[in-house]
Amino acid sequence: MAESSGTGRLNRRSLFGGAAAAAGAAGIGWGAVTLGDRQTGDSNDPTAAATEPFYGEHQAGIETAPPTHAAFIGFDLRPGTDRDDIIGILKIWTDDAARLTQGRPALADTEPELAQRPARLTVTVGLGPRVFTVAGLPQHRPSWLRPLPPFDIDRLEPAWNDGDLMLQVCADEATTVSHAVRVLGKNVASLVSVRWVQRGFRNVAPGQTPRNLMGQVDGTVNIAPGTPDFAELVWDDGRAHPWLTGGTSLVLRRIAMTLDTWDEIDREGRELTVGRTLADGAPLTGSRELDEPDFTAVDAHGIAVIPQSSHIARAHHTSDRERFLRRGYNYDDAPPPGQTSNSGLLFAAFQRDVDAQYLPVQQRLAAFDALNVWTTPIGSAVFVIPPGVRSPGRYLGQTLFES
Amino acid sequence: MAESSGTGRLNRRSLFGGAAAAAGAAGIGWGAVTLGDRQTGDSNDPTAAATEPFYGEHQAGIETAPPTHAAFIGFDLRPGTDRDDIIGILKIWTDDAARLTQGRPALADTEPELAQRPARLTVTVGLGPRVFTVAGLPQHRPSWLRPLPPFDIDRLEPAWNDGDLMLQVCADEATTVSHAVRVLGKNVASLVSVRWVQRGFRNVAPGQTPRNLMGQVDGTVNIAPGTPDFAELVWDDGRAHPWLTGGTSLVLRRIAMTLDTWDEIDREGRELTVGRTLADGAPLTGSRELDEPDFTAVDAHGIAVIPQSSHIARAHHTSDRERFLRRGYNYDDAPPPGQTSNSGLLFAAFQRDVDAQYLPVQQRLAAFDALNVWTTPIGSAVFVIPPGVRSPGRYLGQTLFES
Repeated sequence: MAESSGTGRLNRRSLFGGAAAAAGAAGIGWGAVTLGDRQTGDSNDPTAAATEPFYGEHQAGIETAPPTHAAFIGFDLRPGTDRDDIIGILKIWTDDAARLTQGRPALADTEPELAQRPARLTVTVGLGPRVFTVAGLPQHRPSWLRPLPPFDIDRLEPAWNDGDLMLQVCADEATTVSHAVRVLGKNVASLVSVRWVQRGFRNVAPGQTPRNLMGQVDGTVNIAPGTPDFAELVWDDGRAHPWLTGGTSLVLRRIAMTLDTWDEIDREGRELTVGRTLADGAPLTGSRELDEPDFTAVDAHGIAVIPQSSHIARAHHTSDRERFLRRGYNYDDAPPPGQTSNSGLLFAAFQRDVDAQYLPVQQRLAAFDALNVWTTPIGSAVFVIPPGVRSPGRYLGQTLFES
Repeated sequence: MAESSGTGRLNRRSLFGGAAAAAGAAGIGWGAVTLGDRQTGDSNDPTAAATEPFYGEHQAGIETAPPTHAAFIGFDLRPGTDRDDIIGILKIWTDDAARLTQGRPALADTEPELAQRPARLTVTVGLGPRVFTVAGLPQHRPSWLRPLPPFDIDRLEPAWNDGDLMLQVCADEATTVSHAVRVLGKNVASLVSVRWVQRGFRNVAPGQTPRNLMGQVDGTVNIAPGTPDFAELVWDDGRAHPWLTGGTSLVLRRIAMTLDTWDEIDREGRELTVGRTLADGAPLTGSRELDEPDFTAVDAHGIAVIPQSSHIARAHHTSDRERFLRRGYNYDDAPPPGQTSNSGLLFAAFQRDVDAQYLPVQQRLAAFDALNVWTTPIGSAVFVIPPGVRSPGRYLGQTLFES
């Protein structure tokens, strides 16, 4: 056992010798041994070894095909933190994310082996409104960066709202997500407190839109990376705020599903509520999921085939500018005492301009959407997503602090 | 849109016509349309389409290679339930599990499409001590079926303890687990209340033992299906209780990990605490994970290479009869306010005889295990796992109620 002789013997003695408790404490601060920068991914396991690029014009986790697991974490800056602290946090997260996403341990990673399965890990960082106040940069805050206006359908619980900083951590393995969340959180724990943690999951099958826990194909109408409109709808062009070029915004809504009453609705009632078939998500005027819904079609009795109150009729963009990227996850937490389910949707929408793209759709849905009977927004937060880190040596959000 | 004419028109009218609210309620009770018994699995997606057999001498979910996701649900019988109610629950669960595990919707499944991805779903049913009292069958209760004795290390929270009935639901997709848990729970909701829900996950890589959230390879010492000892250690032979032939027991311990203080221990300290290397889980006296630890080896200074207080030294069975099947999962829930992590292990142990196999090991660990500083049992439950259902027409636990 040559590897644990030498200084190790002292360590062993201190932990397990006669004066175990006192000497054990002396072991603190010797520092964790990391695996260094070696690529340690498990190349025999393609899912575990797969990586998504970290550096680029945009942050990862937006164009990236959504992995099976996600965690969204909202943080509050602790009292007394300042501009330099925010920069420090962003530098640490940049370094951590650059390593972890490539299957390498973070600096001083105390569980370096848990970094060996990146499993398409992405880390996406967002800033809340207060960052601009604390950092003394109110003039650089996008006008849409503020809590959404209240909607009648909202039953927001403060525990799920807002936040000064946000991490979206996604991967195809839950352990990978847990390790990354732990590393990213603890390395800045002296500067921030955790406001909320929201974990979600989705099925991933090639060419298939996943289903939510109401059983619906969810997310059919979406904008796909590589399409002509994607860049225009998602990525900021820097016109209002040059620092934000290549960035975007995230609206995260926690939408509870009342499955007990949803269960009371029969299959056709459900399809008319949504405007799509349950079997394959085709609009009620079509035969395939991706068919364009015909909101003008009526049946022999003159009744709209897709009810005007249906979810897809209300959610449908009235102009091409109202579209946004949906990248949602199901959630299913332990139910509170006396209840059978605690399930719903982490609705994550990315768009260049919250006011111009997201809000009009949300306002129509809030005003009337047949689905509202069974879905309730219980959390709401808006973040600006800074552009990506173009090269090593730079950090997330640097363009903001240099502007 | 031929499929929604006919009776559907009435339904549509009732939901979306002038008297929407009142007529909508009339739609309740028309019953959900199911997909019937057609095999609807997605054969283009091998992970999603994979199934584990339901019928057999033993329940599935024990010998079955552990999938990536698990949920354990503890239920209490509602006041006033009796023997017939318990039989009713077990019949419903048998029918639900026989269908869902094979990729078919449950009877009157309101989200039949969510059954299309069985993803190696297994459903394992356990009975708590009170079932034998309520059913008037105290003479058939195994002697070991009772709460574990208290241990000094325990900080049990009643919310995670005990239960009258237990479901273990495992699959390789989280949505599949959620759907199955929902179906199984709601179909018996009038007879039981949910006591606790514990969700977990683990990596699955061929030939690799997964790691826990402390970073350790966890579960090396285990008994594998197909080995000569497995049947003798896990499956009841019916000697004490003929009805239990082919059954077993489950001990479920919820073990919280104090990662904040674990972080303060350096790498060698951690290895000495566990008795294994972090890199590959080899015992400190060996070079490969599966090497047999040599608890007698000493270094040049006469100090044990594997400390006597280390986890593997304390956990090691002192006789072959003390072994059991470990089938644990990591958990990582949202932390309570002010904390950074809420993580740990759902330690699930299957054995023929809790008193003879599990208890001696647990007693040694509780008396002293170097790991106890960073791990705390906060939940504990024991269940008897009835034998499997050998053929259609029979139900889980039938041998008990016929004996």
